[in-house]
Parts: sequence; C-alpha cells; structure tokens
Amino acid sequence: MEKYSVIGKSLPRVDAVIKATGEAKFTVDMALPRILYGKILRSPYPHARIINIDTSKAKRLLGVKAVITGKDTLGIKYGSIDVPQYPADKNPLAMDKVRYIGDEVAAVAAMDEDTAEEALDLIEVEYEELPSVFDPLEAMKPDAPKIHDTGNICNRISWNYGDVGKGFNESYLIREDRFETAPTAHCQMEPHAALANFDSSGKLSVWSSNQAPYKRRWQLAKTLGIPESKVRVLHTHVGGGFGGKVEPLEPDFQAALLSMVTGCPVKIAYTREEVFTCTMQRHPMVLHLKTGVGKDGTLIATQCKIIADGGAYSGTGPIVMYLAGAFLVTVYRLFNVSYEGYRMYTNKPIRGPQRGHGAVQPRFAFDSQLDMIAEELGMDPMEIRLKNAVKSGDVTPNRFKIRGCGLTETIEKSCEMAGWKEKRGKMPGNRGIGMCSGAFVSGVLIPPHTSSGAFVKVHEDGGVSLLVGIPEIGQGSDTITSQIVADELGIALEDIQVVSGDTEIAPPHAGSFSSRGMWASKAAKAAASDARRQLFEVAAQALEANPEDLAARDRRIYVKGNPEKGMSFKDAVLASYMSKEGNPILGRGYYRPDIDLVDFETGEGNLSPDYSFGTQLAEVEVDKETGKVKLLRMTVGHDVGLAINPMAIEGQTEGSISMGQGQVLTEDVIVEEGRVFNPSFLTYGLPTSMETADIKSIIIDSENQEDSFAPKEAGEGMQIPTPAAIANAVYDAIGVRIKDLPITPEKILKALEEKGGG
Amino acid sequence: MEKYSVIGKSLPRVDAVIKATGEAKFTVDMALPRILYGKILRSPYPHARIINIDTSKAKRLLGVKAVITGKDTLGIKYGSIDVPQYPADKNPLAMDKVRYIGDEVAAVAAMDEDTAEEALDLIEVEYEELPSVFDPLEAMKPDAPKIHDTGNICNRISWNYGDVGKGFNESYLIREDRFETAPTAHCQMEPHAALANFDSSGKLSVWSSNQAPYKRRWQLAKTLGIPESKVRVLHTHVGGGFGGKVEPLEPDFQAALLSMVTGCPVKIAYTREEVFTCTMQRHPMVLHLKTGVGKDGTLIATQCKIIADGGAYSGTGPIVMYLAGAFLVTVYRLFNVSYEGYRMYTNKPIRGPQRGHGAVQPRFAFDSQLDMIAEELGMDPMEIRLKNAVKSGDVTPNRFKIRGCGLTETIEKSCEMAGWKEKRGKMPGNRGIGMCSGAFVSGVLIPPHTSSGAFVKVHEDGGVSLLVGIPEIGQGSDTITSQIVADELGIALEDIQVVSGDTEIAPPHAGSFSSRGMWASKAAKAAASDARRQLFEVAAQALEANPEDLAARDRRIYVKGNPEKGMSFKDAVLASYMSKEGNPILGRGYYRPDIDLVDFETGEGNLSPDYSFGTQLAEVEVDKETGKVKLLRMTVGHDVGLAINPMAIEGQTEGSISMGQGQVLTEDVIVEEGRVFNPSFLTYGLPTSMETADIKSIIIDSENQEDSFAPKEAGEGMQIPTPAAIANAVYDAIGVRIKDLPITPEKILKALEEKGGG
Repeated sequence: MEKYSVIGKSLPRVDAVIKATGEAKFTVDMALPRILYGKILRSPYPHARIINIDTSKAKRLLGVKAVITGKDTLGIKYGSIDVPQYPADKNPLAMDKVRYIGDEVAAVAAMDEDTAEEALDLIEVEYEELPSVFDPLEAMKPDAPKIHDTGNICNRISWNYGDVGKGFNESYLIREDRFETAPTAHCQMEPHAALANFDSSGKLSVWSSNQAPYKRRWQLAKTLGIPESKVRVLHTHVGGGFGGKVEPLEPDFQAALLSMVTGCPVKIAYTREEVFTCTMQRHPMVLHLKTGVGKDGTLIATQCKIIADGGAYSGTGPIVMYLAGAFLVTVYRLFNVSYEGYRMYTNKPIRGPQRGHGAVQPRFAFDSQLDMIAEELGMDPMEIRLKNAVKSGDVTPNRFKIRGCGLTETIEKSCEMAGWKEKRGKMPGNRGIGMCSGAFVSGVLIPPHTSSGAFVKVHEDGGVSLLVGIPEIGQGSDTITSQIVADELGIALEDIQVVSGDTEIAPPHAGSFSSRGMWASKAAKAAASDARRQLFEVAAQALEANPEDLAARDRRIYVKGNPEKGMSFKDAVLASYMSKEGNPILGRGYYRPDIDLVDFETGEGNLSPDYSFGTQLAEVEVDKETGKVKLLRMTVGHDVGLAINPMAIEGQTEGSISMGQGQVLTEDVIVEEGRVFNPSFLTYGLPTSMETADIKSIIIDSENQEDSFAPKEAGEGMQIPTPAAIANAVYDAIGVRIKDLPITPEKILKALEEKGGG
Repeated sequence: MEKYSVIGKSLPRVDAVIKATGEAKFTVDMALPRILYGKILRSPYPHARIINIDTSKAKRLLGVKAVITGKDTLGIKYGSIDVPQYPADKNPLAMDKVRYIGDEVAAVAAMDEDTAEEALDLIEVEYEELPSVFDPLEAMKPDAPKIHDTGNICNRISWNYGDVGKGFNESYLIREDRFETAPTAHCQMEPHAALANFDSSGKLSVWSSNQAPYKRRWQLAKTLGIPESKVRVLHTHVGGGFGGKVEPLEPDFQAALLSMVTGCPVKIAYTREEVFTCTMQRHPMVLHLKTGVGKDGTLIATQCKIIADGGAYSGTGPIVMYLAGAFLVTVYRLFNVSYEGYRMYTNKPIRGPQRGHGAVQPRFAFDSQLDMIAEELGMDPMEIRLKNAVKSGDVTPNRFKIRGCGLTETIEKSCEMAGWKEKRGKMPGNRGIGMCSGAFVSGVLIPPHTSSGAFVKVHEDGGVSLLVGIPEIGQGSDTITSQIVADELGIALEDIQVVSGDTEIAPPHAGSFSSRGMWASKAAKAAASDARRQLFEVAAQALEANPEDLAARDRRIYVKGNPEKGMSFKDAVLASYMSKEGNPILGRGYYRPDIDLVDFETGEGNLSPDYSFGTQLAEVEVDKETGKVKLLRMTVGHDVGLAINPMAIEGQTEGSISMGQGQVLTEDVIVEEGRVFNPSFLTYGLPTSMETADIKSIIIDSENQEDSFAPKEAGEGMQIPTPAAIANAVYDAIGVRIKDLPITPEKILKALEEKGGG
C-alpha cells in the first residue's frame, strides 16, 4: 500500500469552484452597513517639503465624512523591520516631506468613490520643491540631495568568507562583468484593497488583500497605538500576492484611521495605476561580479558588489541585500566569497519583495557569467554546473545546512528531457537553448511569528474543520493543508473545511512569504495527528485493539494487521461524542523549525529548515530583423522535497515561467524623472496567454535523511533560474550576450549591430 | 488572597459598548454582494387542503428572482426531535395541507422587500377549506377534525412513582384544583431573521438569529440534504432568545432554499406581526392537580393531569410534557406521584419553548394550591415550604440527583429580606405578599451535542482569543466565559477576545437553551487551564521553579510561596514564542456532564449535572375599583452555585421578573378562530419600564461537595416562581384566588363580585 492516500495526488483546488464561478469574495467585494469609501491624495512632486495643507474646502463637500493628513496620525513609523539598527521610516501619511511622486499626503472618506475623488481636488497643498535624485549611483555622491535625514544609504551589508584575494590568485581564469536588472511589477489580478472597521469598544477589524495577516496586524497595532489582540485581520480571498502584498500597505492604515475618525467602516481599493505606481515592486539592481575558476571549471572565488535602487523608503530594508548575497553561494560550492550590497534611497517608487526576493537578480548575473566562463574554458554549461553543484550534507560558507538536495538530479533530468546535448549550439533558424540552476528557502524566522500552528475540529458527521494561520493567497495553501489533514485522518479532501489567515481565530503563522507555506503543512499534520490519536483511543475500545495498531484510510479506522476489523470514521467520531466522556475531537499542533535568526552583519546562520533546488532550460527563437525573442519551450526540474499535489506544482511552474518570461523579455516599470511612465496593462508588457511557452515540469522528491516529511517550497524558487536560462539561450541562438534586463528588441538589435561591426 | 481574581466580579459585559452605540451587527444588518430579499406567503385558513398553487404571475414580476413552494423541497420534515417514536412533522413549505393561519405556502426572493411583498399577492393558491379545531379538549374527541394523519394527540406521557392511591388514603387533607395558563410571547427586541448563502461548491452559510447554531445546522443539513460539515451557521449578535429562537425556524430553510435556487444570498427578516403569529410561543395548559398532605403539612401524594395546546405542529414534542411532569417533584420532597400529560394538536400557532420551558405552568398550579392547602391547615406558607423543601443529597423519585441545594437558604433569606413575617396578612390598603419556590436544570443532554468545547489561543501581546460554541444571545455568555478564562490565566477581562457560536470554527455546543451555558463555562475553564499548563512550563524554566509551584494573577506568573519571583504574563508568552521550540500557546478543553439521557416513557434519569433553586416574594397592590394589580416589589433569592458575575445575575433577575410580571398580569396571545387577535406591541400588553417593580436580588452560592467549580443556571429558573408568588400575593391582598393566567382586571372584578356575593 502506498504510504500516502491523499498526499501526492493531483487534486483540484478546494477553492476552484467558487473562484471559477465568481462567488469567492475578495476584499473589494466586502460590504458592511454604513460603509464609506476612501481615496488618497498623492504628491505630484518627487521631492518636496510640505508647507501647508488646507482641507477645509474638501471637508465642506457634501458626502465627505472625513479628511485626514499626517497630523491625524501618531507619527509612529512603520517598515518591514523596526529595530534600532534598521529603523522604520514611513508614516501612514506624509508629515513634513514627500519623497516620491505618489507619496501619500491626505486621505478622504466619503459616501462614494466619486465624491471622495472630487474631494481630493479640493485639498490645497502648498509645497516647496526640493532637488531630487533618481539614480542610485548619483544618490551615493556626497553632494546628492538628501532624501532622509540619515542619508541616502538605506542599508549597506558586507561580508567575507574564506580568502577572496588568495582565491583569485589561485584561479586559472577570472571574469569581471557588470549586470543590470529592471524594476518589475507583480501584476496581481486583484488590486490592493482594505476595509477597516473600528468600533467604540476599541476593536479594529481589517479585511485586507494581503499575504501576511499576522505581520499586518503587528504593524497596524504598533502604528495606530492599539494592542495587537484588539486588531483582527480577517481573511478574504486574495487575487495574487507574489510578494507585493507582504509589506505594510498604506490603505490598511488609512482605512483604519478614517474608520477611527468617522466611526464607520471605510474601504479603500487601489486603481490599477496606483498598484503600478504606489506599491512595492522588485528592486532594480546594478551588479558587479568577479569570479575566478580553476582550469577544470571548479569555482574558486567570487567578489560581488550590488547597488539596489530602493526608492523613497526602506521597504524590506536589509533583507533584500542579505538575500542577494546569501543566495549567491547556495547553488554552487564556493568558499571564498566577498560581498558588498547597498540599498540606496532615490526619489522613486518604493521597491520591495517579489517572488524569489533578492535571489533572482544575482542569479541572473552569476549564471550568465558562468556560461561565459564555461565558454572561455571550452566547457559544456551543464558540466560546469554539475561539477560545482551543492549536495546533501553540504554546509555553505554562510552556514546554510543542506539536508536534502536534488540539484544534480534536476540538472540531469531537465537536460535529458530537453535534449540539451542534441540541441545546444546545434539548433537551426536562430534558435538556441540555455540553462540555469537556482535555490531558495522554505521559510525563514521572523520574530515573534517563529512558528505555525493549527487547530483541527472533527464535526459530528465526520467532516473536519481546519483552522490554520497561513492565508490562502492563490498559492494553494488551503488545498495543501487540507490534503495533509485528510491524509493523516484517512478521510477525503472534500471532508475538510479550512478557515485560514484570520488572526483572531487561527493559530499563528507569519504569513505567506519567503515560502513558509510548508510550515503550515507541518502544523496541520501535527494537529491532525493529535486529533487522530484521540479518535484511535475511542476506536481502539470499540474494536478491542491497541490504539497503536490502528490505521486510518478511506474514511475507515481499522486494525493494521487485519483490515477487515474496523469501523467507519464517522462511527468512531460519533462513538466519541456519545461516550460517557463525550469527547469532542479537538486537535492542535504547531511547527517551529530548528534554524537560526540570521545575523545580517556577518550573513551567518542557517536561514531555513530546507532549501529547494531547481534547473531550467529555455529554448528561444530570435527574430534578427525585429530583435524580438520568442520563448518556445521551458523545461523545469524542481526539487520540492515531497510533492503534496503535483498538479498544484505544475500550476506554480507555469505561473512562474510566465512571470519570469515577462520579466526577462518585455516587462519594465519605466520611471522617468520620478514618474512611472507606463502604469497600465496596455503599456507595461505583461505576457498574455498567446505568448506562453510550452512548459514541461519535472518534479523531484529529494530524500531527506533527517526528516521523513519534508516538503519544500515550490512557487518562488522557480522564478530564480528563468532570466539566465533565457539570456543564455539567446546567446546560444544568436551569439549576443545581453547583460541588462529586460532583453528588449532594441538591445538585441543594438548588440547584433555591435557584433556585426566588431 | 481570594480564590478568584476575575470570577465573582460585577464586570460590565464585553459587548456592552458596541450594543449601546448600535455598532453591534445583528442578522438583519448583514449585507452581502448580490443580496436578495425573501418574503413568505402564508395560509389565510386555519385548516385547508392545497388544491393548486400558480406562481407564474409572481415569477413574471420585474425584480422577482425565484418563487418556491413545497414542491421545491425534498419533503424531509423537521422538528425538535426526530426519532421513530417522536417523528418530525413540519416541511419547510406546506406540501398538501395548511394547518394554521400563517402556515407557510410559498416563498419569494426579489431585488427588494417591496417587490417580494408585491409578488406574494400574485401567487394564486386554490384551497379546499377543512373543518378546524381550536380547543385542545375538543381536539381529544374522537369526531374532532383530524389535523395530522397520526391523530390529534401529538404526545402523551404518563408515569407513576410510589403509590398515589395509598398516599391519598394516608392524607389528612386532599385538595383538587383546576388551573389554566395562557400562551405568552417572548417579545425579543430583535425579530427573527436569516441570511443564507449557498455557493456552487455546495457550501451553505447561514447567519441566523438563533440560540442553537449546532442544532440549527443539524436541522438544515438533514432537511436540505447537505452534509452537516458543509453547512456553516455563523454568529451574529442576537437580540434576545428566551427560548423562541431554539427550534428550527422557517426563514432559515426558506432563505437557504431560495439561495440554492437563485445562486444569490437571500435574507428574510420577520415583521413583528410574523413574530407574534408564526413563531413558537409558550404552551397554554390546562392543569388538574390533586394533592394530599399530612396534618403537619408534609406532602404525601400528588396526581396531575396536564393538557397542553401545542398548536398545528409538534414543536418541542414530548419535551415540554416531560419537563412539566419532572419539575412538579423537584422543589418539594414528594414520593407518591402520578402524572399524565397530553400535548394536543389544534389549528392554531405552534407552541414551543420559553424561559423555564414546561416548568412555569405546573409551578404556578402547584404553589397556588400549596398556599391553599397551607391556609386550610392554618400553616404559614413559608413553613410548609421549608418543611417540604428538597435538600443536598436528595434523589427525586424521577432520579434527579441533587448535588448542591440552597433552596432552604433562598426561602429563609428572601423571607427575611422581604419582611415576610411582618407583612403577610398584615399589609394595609389592599396590599399583599405572596411567595413561591422553584427549581430548574443547568443543561440537559441532546445527542449528538452532548458536550461543550473551547479553544484558547494566546496572542503575542498576551491577549487571548477564546473560541467557544455557545452563542451569545444577550444572556452574557461571552462575558462569563471570558471572565473564567481571564481568571484561570490570571489576566484581565479586557485581554480576552471571544468568538462564539460559529459552527465551523468553534468547538461544539448544543446551544443556549435548557440553561446549558454553564457547560461552556466548564469547557472554557478546561481550555484555559490547558493553556496555563503550557505557559507554566515555559515560565518555570525562566524562573527556575517547578510548574506546579506557579500561580497566575494580575497579568503575572509567579512562584506561589515567593510572589516577588515572577515575570509578566506577556513575557512568559513571548518566551514561549521565542524559545527554540517556538511553542504557540494553544489550549483546548471540553466538558461533558456525567448525567443520563432521560427516558420520556418512564420519566426516569438524572437530567442535569446541577439544579438551581430559588424563592420569590411578590408584593402587590390591587385597585378594587378597576381590578388592576400593581406589582410593587419582588424579592428574589436564587441559588446559582457559584456567581461568576453578580451584576449579570442581577440583570437576569430584573429581566426575568419583568417578563414574569407581564405573563402573570397583562400578557396573552389572544387567538380567536385560529387568528391571532393582538399581534403587536400596541395591543399585546408587554410591561414597560414604567410598570417595573422594585426588584431585590439575593444571590446564593450553594456548596457542592462533589464539584468545587459548579456554577448553575441563573436566567431561566427565575421565571418559574413568579406567577404563583404574584397570585398568592393577590390572594393575600384581597382574598380572591385567580387560577387562570393572566390575572386580568376583568377576572379580579369578577372574583371580587363572586366573593362579595358569596
């Protein structure tokens, strides 16, 4: 008999039907009696001092219930991290200065959105324009306009492992390259929205399209001066996050403040333009990379300097720079490493986390350069990767402990399936193939939400309710956790009802970011196991057996050695309810990995319980006339530890590739003089279904000697190898190397021209 | 140091502020996108066959989305009980016959209430009128019109304990009397309402003003053919239940059916007239009571026959007749008892449970007769009650085990406080004083909801969420359970957030009826104790102490013998979250009393873990010109076991007395030829604050040797002694005895006239 009955099955999502029919309620769908609608007045200047705000005319407009400015806040700033060395720097509404075009100056609550919009026009703001700086390299200069009092360096991180100088001295070949990446938008189908209701008892309820209800709650409580347990962040369906709904978002604060002032519920829903201009997008980076290798291709030393454009506020602060450095050295064995990362303030939209946070940009640089090194050495890019690939049991120089690692397998299987050997350098008609490998975390510690918990309640009809902290944001967590509970209890997926991501009732979970979904899987398993233990005690009495001799499967509880001897799951539940003790079956469980709170200063510490690994092969066709790159085929091998639902992983694969394809080839949030130039789907360049490649997914369950149930991330990490795989394929197709993303037709044509002329 | 820190304190209700400000959301306040409004077409005849229903015109009305009739149901009937010997008898919409004026014939869902109302007029129903019967005694006759195929006796219950014939033979005095009571309305301030949303995934969500979400869920699931765990009954605030929101109510079914047909959420809110005519009210009863006593007033034998008018359907079926018989013998020691109870069908509105279900009517009869017996014996009514009062350790003939009993104390203390000795028979100016004692349950077993459970979750800031099955219906359960959790964890009431009465997330609880609130208290205590154990383990490490040596109070955890050595509650919580194990503090607990599933046929079995006892003294003034009785003062002594919140008990006392006063003196749902004559507050006779008596409450915590934490009911039982206390006071004031309720001016004047003439 298979080890699992529900785990490992490609079952449809539990929320599939109501999402297909449109019945699923998103934040913007929520209605409450006496609801008001909020709108935000934003700065037209990239950098200015606020001299005066006159809201009196706006307040007099019929239908306007409140107008608030920075003066209506407590002045308590928020940010992803708020500790003395990395202080938060954003107020819910600007206090003295505005720092980018879109910075929040005032907010209005009115009877309807039109009236609120009209009121914005009646707010008179007197600004004193200040000189601006838009380029992170310019911002580094001593005479650059100062955006924050603390200077323009938001964060600087640097560390050294081994001896880089010695490493370069011992190297047979050293390459130095400069790479650049663009800001890209998450393009969630659901724009950001929040509905807040503050009542006279001091309780704040917030429905919010977000990825991290507990984190959101913590930030709301602190900035609004309310105890955490008096703030309830409730679950609604979320139409995509991809990192863009992790960090504190202004509508949550402003809706809450407006609700506190008016005594009414207030909803703020972003327009698509606001999503493009006023939510955090992926950091554009400039990367200087110097790598030395031995004659056989063994990586010896790497020196990397990264300058990220953080925009006007701290966003995720040092985290992105930490991750960029940490993931340089997690894919290939490398022991002499020197890293320096700067996150710079500029008068531009704020940058933050996006799928594969911080790891995507350096991976593009490293694996582009790795192909160049391989070429100089006359090596097959597959061979240089196989030679250097990390293995199970490795400890990276920054102390990542690799428990189970299927990287080599992902390389071998992907190359085999894609026909690497047959195709590389041999494809006709300006076609080419390229590859890249990557790695990512499965959740990191964010105090105080260091664990994930779950409650399991068994109903009288044998159905089960699962309460779990992780919010379903489209990633499939409700389905995955339900499958695990169903498997553990030996019942069917449709027997499970899941209530997730509600801070008041669900056990804690830091949120659905940094791929910590699998922690919820562990917690759900523990809670279900606890409930099963209770049921087995009752069933054992009825079956005259020992509880430890029982098993549960197909809605039956039976004696392992004698499957005929058993009873239905429902009968066991009823037997418990109807026993003299009348036990309701109530399970609880939690999971906290045995990992480290990483030190950003040294970069040291084991960040995650397990690391995912993956390899992607891209096949492209380049039109030399137009410069347009067409992605034909992607082969994606991903080591997920244990595939709970293969179909869900395939879904993540297809989504990741589509997103990655856009970010490599067509997407770019163009900011000119601080203004977003293309804040709409018409002009942004998101790939449509018409441009989708043929995607093949290879799912690898790596062995983990230390943990028999160790699923790993399977959503973020797939974003990481895509850029270099495509860039390397373009090189294989037409022999030009594009080192700055996106790989636009203009860049291709220019490079072809230069190559032709050279 | 006091044993408890939060228990026993008169703290304001946790929902006081939002109810005072109007922010609390009731079912009728609920809004959902695409909501439709439902209305019900009702029978204009007390008894008729449905020949045909033509809904075509109604369906064509603009704005009408659906019209349903009995044909759109599965034909699965529902009722309070549904077992072969007591089958359910009501369909969500009439199938073949209507049985009372108001019986549901069709239901409409439309864009707004006006349109739905208009559509009702367009439904054409062809009826064949049938002969009706309105009097339960008439309904007993063999040639009476047959309301149900099974005949007109809905239930008959009878039992004998001891030897009644022998008892009467040994009696010094035997009295025989006939009493009668009227139907009375609950007069909840919030009319009944339901909002149902059925989605394509097969999930039904129902927001419903009800007292028993788990019971409602079970009934909805069965009648609609949906698995129980796919039905979610959600909590909204409830504006009073008093028994009138326990049993299945048509709007829940009809809103659900209309939502299934339309695919939209559907809300049905009753008008006040519908509440008065189409919801279950207290059973009117005719009671024949024969009692024999010894010369010293010792009760020797009682024979009782009760005929209750049940109206058109089974309502609570045999339960009311069981309770009427059972509570005859729970207040005073009595071992020779013969009881026969009939619940009759008539073509009138359905009768069901109301505060003190089944125990109020016979108590009025018994304690009225007891006063008459005392008078004939020349005894003080107080003395005859003291002589016969049950005591701790007693087992009643029907097997009720009295664990803790403060009845004698309630008699003594109430009489002392009211000045019984000084006042009885001596009050000038047509004033009089009367008394009565009573008893009631603290929850009874209703399978499969035989237990109460709770989850406790401790937040990172030291706040706590409590998930508990019992719904807050205005009775104060959210406050009481929160106090218990706060006490157990040594924190403050305001630290607790409670989520109650939501079948999907809260552990099970049969509902807030038959006074089983205290089961939730026990469950909450167990869950909090479980959380405390987890916290003490962490704190013990930090404090270098044994967990069993720790105590929690005033938001601190400390060593019992050395209170200086301690840490804050919050620090202990954070220590747990931040420990290597990262334990989130998750408690769970449940309670199931060790009692019996009572056998209605024999009446035997221990119904409840504990029984409350109380004594009430009424002082009245009678206007002999107008016949009007004014209630001047009520002294209420009630044995509550353990007073969790004395102020809440005082609130229950005042509410009970006000309700009882109305039911004795002014309230009567007048039904003439099957039609309710006074379905409005203008004509019904509910007492207002202007008629409120001066109410004194004496709270008695009786000792319970078997259970150190044994709170008892303190809301229903107080309704029981009021009628006889007032009737006895009227007799004391003017020497006339009214044996049928209500005691109207007409009856007083007639009795005075007869007395004058006699």
